[in-house]
Amino acid sequence: MGGGFDISTHITGMDCLIVSNETVAPLYMDALLASISDRSIETVILPDGEAWKTVETMGLVLDKLIAAGSGRDTTVIALGGGVVGDISGFAAACYMRGVAFIQVPTTLLAQVDSSVGGKTGVNHVQGKNLIGAFHQPHIVLIDTDTLMTLPQRELKAGLAEVIKYGAIVDGEFLRWLEQNMPALLARQPKALAYAVQRSCEIKADVVAEDEKETGRRAILNFGHTFGHAIEYCLGYGEWLHGEGVAAGMVMAAELSDIDAADVARLRALIDAAGLPTSPPKVGAKKLLAAMGRDKKVQRKQLRFVLLNALGDAIVTADYDQRRLTRVLEAAN
Amino acid sequence: MGGGFDISTHITGMDCLIVSNETVAPLYMDALLASISDRSIETVILPDGEAWKTVETMGLVLDKLIAAGSGRDTTVIALGGGVVGDISGFAAACYMRGVAFIQVPTTLLAQVDSSVGGKTGVNHVQGKNLIGAFHQPHIVLIDTDTLMTLPQRELKAGLAEVIKYGAIVDGEFLRWLEQNMPALLARQPKALAYAVQRSCEIKADVVAEDEKETGRRAILNFGHTFGHAIEYCLGYGEWLHGEGVAAGMVMAAELSDIDAADVARLRALIDAAGLPTSPPKVGAKKLLAAMGRDKKVQRKQLRFVLLNALGDAIVTADYDQRRLTRVLEAAN
Repeated sequence: MGGGFDISTHITGMDCLIVSNETVAPLYMDALLASISDRSIETVILPDGEAWKTVETMGLVLDKLIAAGSGRDTTVIALGGGVVGDISGFAAACYMRGVAFIQVPTTLLAQVDSSVGGKTGVNHVQGKNLIGAFHQPHIVLIDTDTLMTLPQRELKAGLAEVIKYGAIVDGEFLRWLEQNMPALLARQPKALAYAVQRSCEIKADVVAEDEKETGRRAILNFGHTFGHAIEYCLGYGEWLHGEGVAAGMVMAAELSDIDAADVARLRALIDAAGLPTSPPKVGAKKLLAAMGRDKKVQRKQLRFVLLNALGDAIVTADYDQRRLTRVLEAAN
Repeated sequence: MGGGFDISTHITGMDCLIVSNETVAPLYMDALLASISDRSIETVILPDGEAWKTVETMGLVLDKLIAAGSGRDTTVIALGGGVVGDISGFAAACYMRGVAFIQVPTTLLAQVDSSVGGKTGVNHVQGKNLIGAFHQPHIVLIDTDTLMTLPQRELKAGLAEVIKYGAIVDGEFLRWLEQNMPALLARQPKALAYAVQRSCEIKADVVAEDEKETGRRAILNFGHTFGHAIEYCLGYGEWLHGEGVAAGMVMAAELSDIDAADVARLRALIDAAGLPTSPPKVGAKKLLAAMGRDKKVQRKQLRFVLLNALGDAIVTADYDQRRLTRVLEAAN
């Protein structure tokens, strides 16, 4: 794992805690352990799935750190997807008010999105990622070879975020995705490597402008206001995060003041990735109520990431109320 | 409350959550509410005491924020002592990865110590403040009039931290304290105001040099390695934090390589404040084991804040092991 990359040189103290889950650990834990065999290593294996992204699961990581007598010079290493990364990062942020953190993301979603940018956190029964911290990893070690063992449904879900980067800031990347979607779904290594690299570049650029999300960073949430509400209404874990975002991006595009042809292009690309292009039938009212919990809400006013054009997004509270009602009706 | 100070101008959004406890709220909540009557205000009243400084109690604050549909532009206001401030600040740090936070400390301990510097957190059954965050308050509003209702035992406990500031960096302040201890115990307003002001200045200076405690900030923990261990061994809430720190400062002075006369001076001042100068009989072995959980531990090596002289402290792992054994024997 890591293709010769020496993770050990990036670990300052002697103690590490590797956090993984029951799906990923059997595949990659041994390789990771071998690459840092010069350290004192503890491990904790979490159950797999978004439903476990809770304060209680984070407590398992904290309990392990405490039981091991870990000091402030310990390093928490997340080996797995977004759930493992978000929980581990939040635990690293809170343990003794912050210890070092390294991300080794093994899913496409984590490689292109959750491992980059420093957002960590857990869900609350009332909403996603409501409790968390900004805690930047020391390094993010991405090995796209790990994508070869990823279930196809999760690969597709990760592509939703990849498509998002094209939609919000890079029309050229969006065209590249239109041409290379079959290659990505077939896991051609070069195509995957480019998609991951370009996605990380875009995310890092946007985050660098606005780390704490006081403004522009929020464009990374394109499709997420609808997507999070979908996940909430279905119950976490029913749809994958990327699936909610996929349908949410189509809804956000429909709410945007752009050409119908551009909406159709985005919908076609999402469909080509094998992702849902409309919300599940959870009811428009329920969906709207769930959106009120979005972190972008200011003074009780909903705000959306909308498109000026494909490749150009803005955060705004200025949207057509009747159009929103129509968009939400797809959930009836 | 606030002596005409307009707290309202420091609140950017419309929504506030005031967190207080069942002891302080009846005394000062109405005055605080009146001073921000132009905002939309929710309140949450916590049980009183260190024993409640837990993740579960923080959950009550988070639940209230979530139930109120609070957005990122909400402000959490802590009205009370260190426990209320630490819990509220940690909740503010974690809610939506960080919302605005204001401290209105009403105990001497909170006014001179916990409200200044941005440390927030909760206890774990295995140790104090093991889980938390650095989250600076927007403002700290100190009204020393609130000290008039403080129980005498808590006033004394707060004086332990005041004495600490003199001991670690300001020999002149230490002399002022020796002369003014009777005035402080009698709550003479001018004496209290000066003691609070000088303590905040010293703390702010030390924190400004090293906000995240990578080095010098740790001198603020003089007496705390022993003190935390005392609190842990007795069970949180048995001794007040300041009482543990008081005995801990005497133990740390005894472990230091300084004149016996200086140790005696510090002990006399702590005694004059009506504070304990030796540890409770919890057993030396148990105390030593509890100290191993200290956040200053690096590579499993205990580190202490020791004195070069009264008014001059350092953080060091270089101490006399036999002397430590002797100091700990006071707990047998």
